[in-house]
Amino acid sequence: MRHDEFPAGSVWLVGAGPGDPDLLTRKALRLIAAADIVFHDALVGPGVLDLIGPETERVSVGKRSGRHSKDQGTIDALIVAAALAGRRVVRLKGGDPAIFGRTAEELAACRAAGVPVHICPGITAASAAVASAGASLTLRGLARQLTFVTAHASAGKPLDLDWRTLSAPDATLAVYMGRAAAATVARQLIAAGRAPDTPVLVVVNAALPSERIIRGQLFALSFLVEAVSDDDPAVLIIGEAVAAADGRSAKAALAVTAPSNASNPA
Amino acid sequence: MRHDEFPAGSVWLVGAGPGDPDLLTRKALRLIAAADIVFHDALVGPGVLDLIGPETERVSVGKRSGRHSKDQGTIDALIVAAALAGRRVVRLKGGDPAIFGRTAEELAACRAAGVPVHICPGITAASAAVASAGASLTLRGLARQLTFVTAHASAGKPLDLDWRTLSAPDATLAVYMGRAAAATVARQLIAAGRAPDTPVLVVVNAALPSERIIRGQLFALSFLVEAVSDDDPAVLIIGEAVAAADGRSAKAALAVTAPSNASNPA
Repeated sequence: MRHDEFPAGSVWLVGAGPGDPDLLTRKALRLIAAADIVFHDALVGPGVLDLIGPETERVSVGKRSGRHSKDQGTIDALIVAAALAGRRVVRLKGGDPAIFGRTAEELAACRAAGVPVHICPGITAASAAVASAGASLTLRGLARQLTFVTAHASAGKPLDLDWRTLSAPDATLAVYMGRAAAATVARQLIAAGRAPDTPVLVVVNAALPSERIIRGQLFALSFLVEAVSDDDPAVLIIGEAVAAADGRSAKAALAVTAPSNASNPA
Repeated sequence: MRHDEFPAGSVWLVGAGPGDPDLLTRKALRLIAAADIVFHDALVGPGVLDLIGPETERVSVGKRSGRHSKDQGTIDALIVAAALAGRRVVRLKGGDPAIFGRTAEELAACRAAGVPVHICPGITAASAAVASAGASLTLRGLARQLTFVTAHASAGKPLDLDWRTLSAPDATLAVYMGRAAAATVARQLIAAGRAPDTPVLVVVNAALPSERIIRGQLFALSFLVEAVSDDDPAVLIIGEAVAAADGRSAKAALAVTAPSNASNPA
């Protein structure tokens, strides 16, 4: 531990990455080892939780799509109270804290209470998903713009995005927590002009032992996700960049392509 | 090393993260330790290169903004030749291989030659930049869409983006290799309707000892980057999410806000 990296009474918001403990950073490992208490999401993988020492208190503040075991205000209050009690607090978040992680709320709560708070970044799900699939998120000249959105906050509400722009042929779109929104995403993108045979990748439980990689084309997206459970995090990745995915991966569970079109160069 | 994770004659494209060796993953560390030869970018930090063992051959295929010491075809050929000679090859890339990393070209070259190739993801610069600054890239309700673009490929050419969409008030935009494009980005976003007092963060050499964090507002972006060298990688982050950045950071070198407007809640 570096001098003063983690004084008593302070908080680190730590990115746990997608689930594989091998995808934690050295810094995250060191912070977890030094913590007195770890508050973690439900989406943090079991292999990561196994790294928490027996002396460290472990509190699940688990959230999954559609149900929250603790609301955000309660989580904020628990973190702040633990730090004010003089403990070293790790708030362990799936993926990268900066990307759809409710990090701003926790930063604000700590700062309002005068609690020192820092962030350790993590591997975000989209990066892990394409790494597993043997693909990129961008392609020089062909996929020059990468957009991340989440469908999580929109449960029960129509997904309100600028479909016209996301339908540009050189854009890659990653939809986090995307299972429930898959039909809407495909319909809206195609209506806005995106080619129905645009390559798509659905990665479920990215970087966990239960990982599944499903390949296909945009028109079939709602079919591709049919077998995905609501409880499993799924990232949808749409765009020409994922056509480069390694078709030889043993993990490919399913591949659906338009019968009238052989343009998928995977 | 896991059984068969890295057989002789295979290639791993490995994300080195933003520069701090503590932000490498455990998996990246293991692959670097097992490599016979490492081909690395100029943007991979010296602390990361120090992790390469004395027995491992180290080849710089350095690229920096505006000049390439080896062209992509040469890099592809070197990687493939080393693997075909039976060596364990690591291609160490700054940040995450999937994001503006020319990964598709290297995957295609390996596959065409029958060389097994895999990807280990890394922390991308935008994640590291906001972590250092104590901010998020997204805000629930207020910054729901995150877009990454690179200005690197556009040296000498006008940056051709859909400015109208990127000007949406709930979008966060991260511009990689953004120094030279800063004036264009600010002018075009404001012309497309983005508020001139939108918070911006410029992070130079993110996660390196030479890191600099510059805060301000969109209208002043070209001024904010004036002191940044062409050779230093800079990520520009634009949007309400970065208003949450910790104004108390000792690393804040400069902060420029619109004199007529006190809306920056940092």
